[in-house]
Amino acid sequence: MTRHVLSGTAAARGSALGRARVRLPHALDVAETRIAADEVEAELERIHAAVETVREEMRALRERLHGALAHEVGEFLDLHALLLDDPELLQGIDSLIRTGLYSADYALRLQRDRIAAVFDGIDDAYLRSRIDDIDQVIGRLHAALHRSEAELQGVAGEILVTDNIAPTELAQLQAQGVVGVVTAAGSALSHSAILARSLHLPLVVGAAQALLKVNDGDVLVIDGGTGLVVLEPDADDLRAHRQRSDEAKRERKQLNRLRREPSRTLDGTDIKLWANAESREDVAEAHALGAAGVGLYRTEFLFMGSREIPDEDTQFRAYRDAVLGMTGRTVTIRTLDLGADKADKTGLALRDEPNPALGLRGVRLSLARDGLLHTQLRAIARASGYGPVRVLVPMISGAEEMRTVRAMLRTALAEVRREGHEVAAQLPLGAMIEVPSAALSLSGFIGACDFLSIGTNDLVQYLLAADRNNEALGELYTPLHPALLRLLRDVVRIAQRRGRPVAVCGEIAGDAAFVPLLLALGLTELSLHPATLLEVRRAIRSCDLSGLRNEARALLRARDRAGIERWLSANTQAMP
Amino acid sequence: MTRHVLSGTAAARGSALGRARVRLPHALDVAETRIAADEVEAELERIHAAVETVREEMRALRERLHGALAHEVGEFLDLHALLLDDPELLQGIDSLIRTGLYSADYALRLQRDRIAAVFDGIDDAYLRSRIDDIDQVIGRLHAALHRSEAELQGVAGEILVTDNIAPTELAQLQAQGVVGVVTAAGSALSHSAILARSLHLPLVVGAAQALLKVNDGDVLVIDGGTGLVVLEPDADDLRAHRQRSDEAKRERKQLNRLRREPSRTLDGTDIKLWANAESREDVAEAHALGAAGVGLYRTEFLFMGSREIPDEDTQFRAYRDAVLGMTGRTVTIRTLDLGADKADKTGLALRDEPNPALGLRGVRLSLARDGLLHTQLRAIARASGYGPVRVLVPMISGAEEMRTVRAMLRTALAEVRREGHEVAAQLPLGAMIEVPSAALSLSGFIGACDFLSIGTNDLVQYLLAADRNNEALGELYTPLHPALLRLLRDVVRIAQRRGRPVAVCGEIAGDAAFVPLLLALGLTELSLHPATLLEVRRAIRSCDLSGLRNEARALLRARDRAGIERWLSANTQAMP
Repeated sequence: MTRHVLSGTAAARGSALGRARVRLPHALDVAETRIAADEVEAELERIHAAVETVREEMRALRERLHGALAHEVGEFLDLHALLLDDPELLQGIDSLIRTGLYSADYALRLQRDRIAAVFDGIDDAYLRSRIDDIDQVIGRLHAALHRSEAELQGVAGEILVTDNIAPTELAQLQAQGVVGVVTAAGSALSHSAILARSLHLPLVVGAAQALLKVNDGDVLVIDGGTGLVVLEPDADDLRAHRQRSDEAKRERKQLNRLRREPSRTLDGTDIKLWANAESREDVAEAHALGAAGVGLYRTEFLFMGSREIPDEDTQFRAYRDAVLGMTGRTVTIRTLDLGADKADKTGLALRDEPNPALGLRGVRLSLARDGLLHTQLRAIARASGYGPVRVLVPMISGAEEMRTVRAMLRTALAEVRREGHEVAAQLPLGAMIEVPSAALSLSGFIGACDFLSIGTNDLVQYLLAADRNNEALGELYTPLHPALLRLLRDVVRIAQRRGRPVAVCGEIAGDAAFVPLLLALGLTELSLHPATLLEVRRAIRSCDLSGLRNEARALLRARDRAGIERWLSANTQAMP
Repeated sequence: MTRHVLSGTAAARGSALGRARVRLPHALDVAETRIAADEVEAELERIHAAVETVREEMRALRERLHGALAHEVGEFLDLHALLLDDPELLQGIDSLIRTGLYSADYALRLQRDRIAAVFDGIDDAYLRSRIDDIDQVIGRLHAALHRSEAELQGVAGEILVTDNIAPTELAQLQAQGVVGVVTAAGSALSHSAILARSLHLPLVVGAAQALLKVNDGDVLVIDGGTGLVVLEPDADDLRAHRQRSDEAKRERKQLNRLRREPSRTLDGTDIKLWANAESREDVAEAHALGAAGVGLYRTEFLFMGSREIPDEDTQFRAYRDAVLGMTGRTVTIRTLDLGADKADKTGLALRDEPNPALGLRGVRLSLARDGLLHTQLRAIARASGYGPVRVLVPMISGAEEMRTVRAMLRTALAEVRREGHEVAAQLPLGAMIEVPSAALSLSGFIGACDFLSIGTNDLVQYLLAADRNNEALGELYTPLHPALLRLLRDVVRIAQRRGRPVAVCGEIAGDAAFVPLLLALGLTELSLHPATLLEVRRAIRSCDLSGLRNEARALLRARDRAGIERWLSANTQAMP
């Protein structure tokens, strides 16, 4: 085999060298294999052990995840855990082994095909999409069966080559020591790609030829920064890889030196870097990295773990701990943003909405369920006695909701004070700007907001009417749209004119590549996951703010994505 | 029983007098009734006859519907027809009658409960919502069983009192002679309410006490214009009802005189009233009412009836007939706006989208399926040889899609001309403005649009992130939001500055109450269903355009729905 270069799309920076582990699509097409009658018990034991392994694996993964990862990956894991507990699935496999004398592998495949046939027959849109989830669970079981045979143990140091990769798999692959991933399909804007970047796991997507050209065991060098995949690399390739790796190490070191440095532009303006957080670990990391505070403390995790709605004391303790963890820096607590798309066991969210993203979520749900918001506001008010706290309300669509929440906060504060709790003199109330109508009617209710946080993930989704998890839409979902830039500019203007602080807290804020764009539009506060905080700080430190602001008009003249990308290239400083 | 007044919300104007027919929720809770073994065949015959009746009833209803009604109600009917053909449902009932010796009624109920239990068990969001549809089909079967016993025949002249009403039921009730409807729940902005208004069927919603206070056979007078329901009316009530009815008749006559009158404001500006259409009947009616042309010719009906994708000739003939039907007035043909939420049998649309409204629909789907748009553009180009035609593209999100479609139209025109077909010299291409990003980035691609049509239904849905069919959201979905008004103003400004005609084609355009608002914002073209064209024309003729335009700033200063409603009250002329 001689050297050969495949090209794909750069999706997550980093260079990796390793042997290829090829995972073909439908790897579950195992041949029909029978067992002897006296092997039944052993085979049943194998599959039950695999189920236990997977259950444990998912539990461990769930625990290890925190921050944005818990958020992104957690819902999938919760769903998969439910499927794994489905007696239908396991009893079917047992009986295939027992009465059909099939091997565990083949029984797994047969059962998968059975379920798929039922799903196909049902002819139901939503349910049919669930077959993907079942495939993933079956895939995990399959892998576990083989892991016990020490076959998949060798993944550490390998590069996975596959057709596509799910967000849930990435975190696990990294934990297993996989050094890079190449996919034949996929997009650099997919959830998986975003996740790979925050995991610092090199990823090349859209390498269409990969499954044809690469064989199990081939040696590969991949560069997630350029999208190149080299098969059987020569001396030059190895040298280039080593250089890139050394450079990455140096970069990491340099980045770490920025822990105690200010997030200050070349021309001396301090940009406020907040952290997004939802666990103690996140809070600790945010503190260690020198975040200005927590800009988005998600509270969904309190509601998603169990069937119980957490009571005021449980909530209070969680919020108080976050406040104590930041030792005097502000914690911005977002009220519950539950909706039907999150794996919710409390029964608070509706389960039958045809378009959950356009349904009863965020503040709408909080206002629709008796006492829910009142309890949460009381818990937050009590936590404010332990350090500076702000309250942030998700999915505000206009003036009415903001006024309602403000009145409820006033009531909660008065109650809690009357009961003798220590409460902060100031408890600023802010709106998430993520529903387009809120952005467009902001001037009518900015007076009711003490601060704003722009949630670009949902805002882009609604502006473009494009579900960001719908792969069929390709690259239609993108923050690089003139409509978003103009709306950001308008929101920033209105907020600044009224002296209201405004931050961006969507994924765009955590991507160093977009820093020049956000600064040009007038933003001076970003809220992002700690994982990329130092990279963003470095990008800020290489920006000339007044220069960028002078280029804002050119940016806002861009008519399409290509125009915005050209502006970004022209206005991005080479990294030092 | 003495006179008693209940109050609800006015949902569709009109006065009605009649005896109450109370439909309690869960009317299907029939008692367990058994039959003798020799009655089995007769009972099976009864249920089969009921199935045939319902099938025929739905077929007839589907045919009678046209225009907006076909659009709104058609999808539900298509889905229900599919359910009715489900062997699972009918075989289950048969076997219950045969082996359980249950009456057809009770078998129907048992089968319904069985299905519901399966649905509950499945624990699947989307599928569970389907139980409502199954309930409706079962409800129809139940009604049909009793209709053959001449029980429900008496509905003509009655007023239905129920908890809530589905859009599909309304058209049928009217056809059966029901004179009015009172519901305990529901909103004046629901689909059903909108439908009742275009059917001119008096409707009072939200009369919470109705099911408690009204008994079957009570005499009622209801006023859909005020929301009042009078039980056992006295002489004064009857006189008031007669006055309202006479007035309505006079109004109808007056309206009919407007058929040949211009849609001209008091100060002499002609407003262009286009018709929305999707059938020959619509086109004929539009012509008869003096519509300026067809502003929105929907083409989905060609794709929704059968499993076949209509070929170029089939499409061409439909478009040509519409063009011929308008005798020289322009027909604006909208390219396919199929999406996963429409009952599509062709397999073009995806069936597994978690948020179909944010999915592969409209131009996205047309561009994603090989040849689909090309064939449609060719068919439209050929139809343009028979009279003036415009092409309108749904779900445009920005510059890129518009450029792509324009290039494809150029190709299609050149091909068709080369093949020797007669093609119009001009074939204007327009964009639907219904995705917020298109409205916000319009200045960047207005040059690629010959005209615009603002689809407020979807635009509001995306702006507010509120599914308009999601009842749980209450009145959150509303066009009376400052964000919509500002965006309308901006779109109109940009279009007028560049000399591009711009129309509004959402439901707001067909509601006479909103005419002052739309005129104030600068609109001079509306496209609406023929059913309300004369009412809108009358409203236009009572408007002082320059006066309204002077009030635009006050309208745009409104901060919330209440403010907009105050403006509307202040700026609505009393009807002559």
